[in-house]
Amino acid sequence: MSFVDVPVTSPFTFENLPFGVFSTNENSKKRIGVAIGAQILDLSVVKHLFTGPLLSERQNVFSQATLNQFMGLSRQCWLEARLTLQSLLSNDNPMLRDDSELRERAFVAQSEATMHLPALIGDYTDFYSSIYHATNVGTMFRGKDNALMENWKWLPVAYHGRASSIVVSGTAVNRPWGQVKAEDDTQPNFVPSRLMDFELEMAFFVGGPGNALGTPIPIEKTEEHIFGMVLMNDWSARDIQKWEYVPLGPFLGKSFATTISPWVVTMEALRPFVVDNPSQNPSPFAHLNHCDPYSFNIDLTVEIKPAGSDRSVPICRTNFRHLYWTLKQQLAHHTSNGCNVRPGDLLGSGTLSGPTPDSFGCLLELSWKGTNAVKLGESGETRKFLKDGDEVIISGKCESPTGEIRIGFGECRGKLLPAIKRNFCATIEK
Amino acid sequence: MSFVDVPVTSPFTFENLPFGVFSTNENSKKRIGVAIGAQILDLSVVKHLFTGPLLSERQNVFSQATLNQFMGLSRQCWLEARLTLQSLLSNDNPMLRDDSELRERAFVAQSEATMHLPALIGDYTDFYSSIYHATNVGTMFRGKDNALMENWKWLPVAYHGRASSIVVSGTAVNRPWGQVKAEDDTQPNFVPSRLMDFELEMAFFVGGPGNALGTPIPIEKTEEHIFGMVLMNDWSARDIQKWEYVPLGPFLGKSFATTISPWVVTMEALRPFVVDNPSQNPSPFAHLNHCDPYSFNIDLTVEIKPAGSDRSVPICRTNFRHLYWTLKQQLAHHTSNGCNVRPGDLLGSGTLSGPTPDSFGCLLELSWKGTNAVKLGESGETRKFLKDGDEVIISGKCESPTGEIRIGFGECRGKLLPAIKRNFCATIEK
Repeated sequence: MSFVDVPVTSPFTFENLPFGVFSTNENSKKRIGVAIGAQILDLSVVKHLFTGPLLSERQNVFSQATLNQFMGLSRQCWLEARLTLQSLLSNDNPMLRDDSELRERAFVAQSEATMHLPALIGDYTDFYSSIYHATNVGTMFRGKDNALMENWKWLPVAYHGRASSIVVSGTAVNRPWGQVKAEDDTQPNFVPSRLMDFELEMAFFVGGPGNALGTPIPIEKTEEHIFGMVLMNDWSARDIQKWEYVPLGPFLGKSFATTISPWVVTMEALRPFVVDNPSQNPSPFAHLNHCDPYSFNIDLTVEIKPAGSDRSVPICRTNFRHLYWTLKQQLAHHTSNGCNVRPGDLLGSGTLSGPTPDSFGCLLELSWKGTNAVKLGESGETRKFLKDGDEVIISGKCESPTGEIRIGFGECRGKLLPAIKRNFCATIEK
Repeated sequence: MSFVDVPVTSPFTFENLPFGVFSTNENSKKRIGVAIGAQILDLSVVKHLFTGPLLSERQNVFSQATLNQFMGLSRQCWLEARLTLQSLLSNDNPMLRDDSELRERAFVAQSEATMHLPALIGDYTDFYSSIYHATNVGTMFRGKDNALMENWKWLPVAYHGRASSIVVSGTAVNRPWGQVKAEDDTQPNFVPSRLMDFELEMAFFVGGPGNALGTPIPIEKTEEHIFGMVLMNDWSARDIQKWEYVPLGPFLGKSFATTISPWVVTMEALRPFVVDNPSQNPSPFAHLNHCDPYSFNIDLTVEIKPAGSDRSVPICRTNFRHLYWTLKQQLAHHTSNGCNVRPGDLLGSGTLSGPTPDSFGCLLELSWKGTNAVKLGESGETRKFLKDGDEVIISGKCESPTGEIRIGFGECRGKLLPAIKRNFCATIEK
């Protein structure tokens, strides 16, 4: 299909063409690229080849240091960009294929690139849309009979997250300090978190021109505002979270870091993997109701690579299709009060637990609040929560039933480093 | 003191010199100005006069469309800017005073200016730091004995807010739609909020170069990262908030709009009004502990101007000094887990209720959950919650005991407009 070689194990097939932002040792300028096989097509070099009716006047979106301007164009523009890229990279098109000078400048090996955040994220919102996750966590903390809050099936529960501490895959994360209080302690302590966890999530970037404040995006129009998706690890310090979160929700238990994968897979690339939406009961309000399928068959895996080990071990396998609320419903709900969203805003799915114990999306559930030690494969090691030096690796891929179409998200990885030293520790003696 | 006339009622005295961003009909470009009397000194016109050792090399921060770059400089730079402005505006300095051509270009009447948001706000955090507010709300919802949550006196409780919907004073706000559920309803309804409220708050802008992710700002260094303050109205839809907020905190009940005053009063201007910090018991952890006074004597008033009325009526009078947690403690706590803050980030105080019923900072408290109708002066009108057309006007000022030094924040105002029409209303019949 493409003149660029795509190894069979590569997530970045001709049908995928995800967008990202990269730099190289030779050129530290951040620029927009498209992944194919083991290569990156540098769009700042080939932007003059986007000669379609819409993009010919907007080629400069491809010479920016972030995807925000491109994301902010209309969905028609995204589709035209995809068509242009498919044409440029096609075996049948000599324009780039046979121009060795241009090809030399336009392609960069992924192995030589440093990836950056794909967009300047104005606001980051995290949903809580897996019914399995919400039920598990509710069962642990409130018992089986009160597991799901009364509002959960009526609206996609969410909270505002911290945008500044979103980092790109590969960024190491320090174990955070925080106030924690065990059940039998009479007062809290300020210590490095002891209950560090990952959360397997996916997230989507908002696109389109953005809605004016006060003007909701109707559910029928939401597709025009959903640009594409990434993998996400919503690192969580369970002990900090537990002590701080009443009554206003998670804060420092989450805001020390959130990791996303660098390549944004477009909704158009995901189209072959659309599946029926989960059935919803009660049926949603009209402003949250849509009949077209907008759930996606994405296989997700979490692996842990302990310090000093050269092998990562799968600890969770699940699928994005288990999400109860669709991305369309999330966005329609988010703007239903008139809240404005802007291109580059990031909306997280919430932890993507599935129905079976091996599909739970975080250690809190996998170890059932630390009551079971989870085996790390045949290594002999176990985990209730993360240890210093653990690297958490999330990957995601889609494959059509016949195996004909394959796309992947690549990886979202991050290593947990020890807590930093704080020199006042000795003075904590309240 | 200054050759610019400062009427005795003006909040913008020679001792104040707050920073803001404005444009005019003649020049739609957003630019940075300093308020004095009824005038604005346009810093983009006089930036070449900042010839001090630090700013002479950084004059371009004054030709930006937001204050972020200036806020991002060191505190030494802010102090040098203040000294330069005091010199430029002084009666004794002929440089600007006697240059009528430059003066003509450099001054703009506030009446002819449109004010804009002072900064691009990367992240917005809202604290909950008034012990009177937290106790009142807790008493209403959980009873007197469980009013304050166990964590409240150990850490400044906060949540992430929505940055995109922060608007500048004068912006009208539509009553939001949302899901609400009354106690005796069997299921929620999607309707315009019926329990609209204001929240009297103040907020500070983060300054300085920002901390690296993973590196807390020690409490001793927080002053270098607190640029200045504004008034804030954290509009709240109490019925939406009540239904949605468990377990992850406020979301759509707040994110439809947050209004701030346009002029950022610097911490240096507030220095004469420093007062002792509230006593804290238990005494805070070492990383939250500071002995230097960093509370401020700022008189605050909320007025309501009903639709069709030409008079606004005071409904709350309180003081910023009632805040339990100081700004330093808020910032030290916020970064204690390694969370990074960036210049232009906004941190809200939480509702600034005082100890007496006339000093409660929102209608929820003033009407005690809607059980008392609050009289609007002698107008014969009353309020439990806001009515369409109500304009909420927050003002704040400081005066030294002898009346010698006076500064003010100006106003934070916003009118509540009716809910927008939504054409699917008829179809809501779940």
